[in-house]
Amino acid sequence: MDAPHSLLTKDQLKQAGLNDFAYGYQDKVRFYELDALNHVNNTVFLKWFETIRVDYVLARGLTTYSHEGDDPQLVVRHLSADFLAPMYQNEVYTVAARTRLIKPTSFIMDYAVAVGGQIRGTGDCVVVSLEQDGRTRRAHFPAAVSAMVELDGAELKS
Amino acid sequence: MDAPHSLLTKDQLKQAGLNDFAYGYQDKVRFYELDALNHVNNTVFLKWFETIRVDYVLARGLTTYSHEGDDPQLVVRHLSADFLAPMYQNEVYTVAARTRLIKPTSFIMDYAVAVGGQIRGTGDCVVVSLEQDGRTRRAHFPAAVSAMVELDGAELKS
Amino acid sequence: MDAPHSLLTKDQLKQAGLNDFAYGYQDKVRFYELDALNHVNNTVFLKWFETIRVDYVLARGLTTYSHEGDDPQLVVRHLSADFLAPMYQNEVYTVAARTRLIKPTSFIMDYAVAVGGQIRGTGDCVVVSLEQDGRTRRAHFPAAVSAMVELDGAELKS
Amino acid sequence: MDAPHSLLTKDQLKQAGLNDFAYGYQDKVRFYELDALNHVNNTVFLKWFETIRVDYVLARGLTTYSHEGDDPQLVVRHLSADFLAPMYQNEVYTVAARTRLIKPTSFIMDYAVAVGGQIRGTGDCVVVSLEQDGRTRRAHFPAAVSAMVELDGAELKS
Repeated sequence: MDAPHSLLTKDQLKQAGLNDFAYGYQDKVRFYELDALNHVNNTVFLKWFETIRVDYVLARGLTTYSHEGDDPQLVVRHLSADFLAPMYQNEVYTVAARTRLIKPTSFIMDYAVAVGGQIRGTGDCVVVSLEQDGRTRRAHFPAAVSAMVELDGAELKS
Repeated sequence: MDAPHSLLTKDQLKQAGLNDFAYGYQDKVRFYELDALNHVNNTVFLKWFETIRVDYVLARGLTTYSHEGDDPQLVVRHLSADFLAPMYQNEVYTVAARTRLIKPTSFIMDYAVAVGGQIRGTGDCVVVSLEQDGRTRRAHFPAAVSAMVELDGAELKS
Repeated sequence: MDAPHSLLTKDQLKQAGLNDFAYGYQDKVRFYELDALNHVNNTVFLKWFETIRVDYVLARGLTTYSHEGDDPQLVVRHLSADFLAPMYQNEVYTVAARTRLIKPTSFIMDYAVAVGGQIRGTGDCVVVSLEQDGRTRRAHFPAAVSAMVELDGAELKS
Repeated sequence: MDAPHSLLTKDQLKQAGLNDFAYGYQDKVRFYELDALNHVNNTVFLKWFETIRVDYVLARGLTTYSHEGDDPQLVVRHLSADFLAPMYQNEVYTVAARTRLIKPTSFIMDYAVAVGGQIRGTGDCVVVSLEQDGRTRRAHFPAAVSAMVELDGAELKS
């Protein structure tokens, strides 16, 4: 029995229609994600992007969410989403995330959701890295930068 | 790769600490399910019970949620939940549901959530079966009654 | 311009159909509170009860939610709700809360939601008072007990 | 006793720090809108924008949400939000919405949230107007276009 949110391989993501991604998993639309129009509410796509971001950021070593010491605090400054096709109750979808661009103290992520090879929604997000004071910008851990470059093909911008 | 919400067997549910259940699956706590106290919000347990109820009711053949013709409309009249231990980010839990009591035009369900063999929360729910007019009580499909009796050990009360 | 969640008087609550309550306010159903059946989702009633509980508990002086020192930590152990009639988009409702019973280190609250003098849902809740260690039971502040007895007519049980 | 979501005047919105808006109201942060970081979750800003959009669209006469006959169906195609400062439990905020640009069968809206004259977050949204078949683009009602131009100063683009 697989654990929920088992990570997919790059090949599996490609098969799911998500060519440029190296981090993703499957999930299923739940009743509480529908709105009165009987399809998945727009803001729910942004919750899916948040859910995968929390896992991704741990996986790439950007923070441990310890909220102490040397650990960066990551703050979302911008979110956007495009809705390409509606989604319905019980649909099994693949959601994926990657870092597109790394700046010294911030990064930009991309997201996509696909069902049966068709992309239903995409999004992006600007995340800023701060010291635990919640104010001072701080550099990423070098190992996290390497992981984003190597695994996601993220572009480095100084 | 398993589909999300793969059903567990009775033995797997027993191993998870959920002895009396025949319907259940695993899932994982998501960031958006935490509240400001940094644990799973109480109302989220009730969303988990709702999510599994929607699947369970289809599985036992109580309704097809068609909202037409002969299909019963199921209305929740009462919900309750007991919170036995807090739950945290990324915990993998097992949630299970069963029908405890079947009356001619209603039924009572039980729910439980367990982590590592320890029950973290339980709940129950009274569901009423109506015609599509949303008012007239109607009997359950006999096959659904049989399924609840045979699979869940539900008690019949006339 | 009134602040949102302006408290109603006992007389206003009585007029709203909520006879036994001394603490309540009006609010309006929002689109995100509807589910795919196009009425307010059951779990949303429990969110309304949570929202008013947080305000009520501060108002009666049970805790300041400081999470430090002498301040009690309040933990919900049990929730229930009864759904009497459906609710729809943009309905203005009155929600009210009171303490029914005070035990040395816990209390039981009642809730109700009414529209146009008709009660649409009710609920109750058992809350336990703990030290900041999250384990040791602790007595309520005497002033909070007095407030619940005098304002809500709560029954004291030793 | 004011109804919840009482509309503010242009002057009141200006005083609240929202100069370019003609449609807005006050509301208060609720406990369930906080996340584990103890401030308002990013996606909640987008729910606030959705809530005001539903009211605004009715107020300007763009649709009646009847889902029948001649009534346009409005579909959100793009959402974005910028998060300028964190928000906390019980803060009273003003949220406002306007249409910035009207195209023949779509329009672009702007949103902002302010507390004590300080803008905490902004957003925008692309909405497409469809026939009830959910596919064919359709023109806006002329009265709605006039209302958006006159009240919001929306720009017309053919």
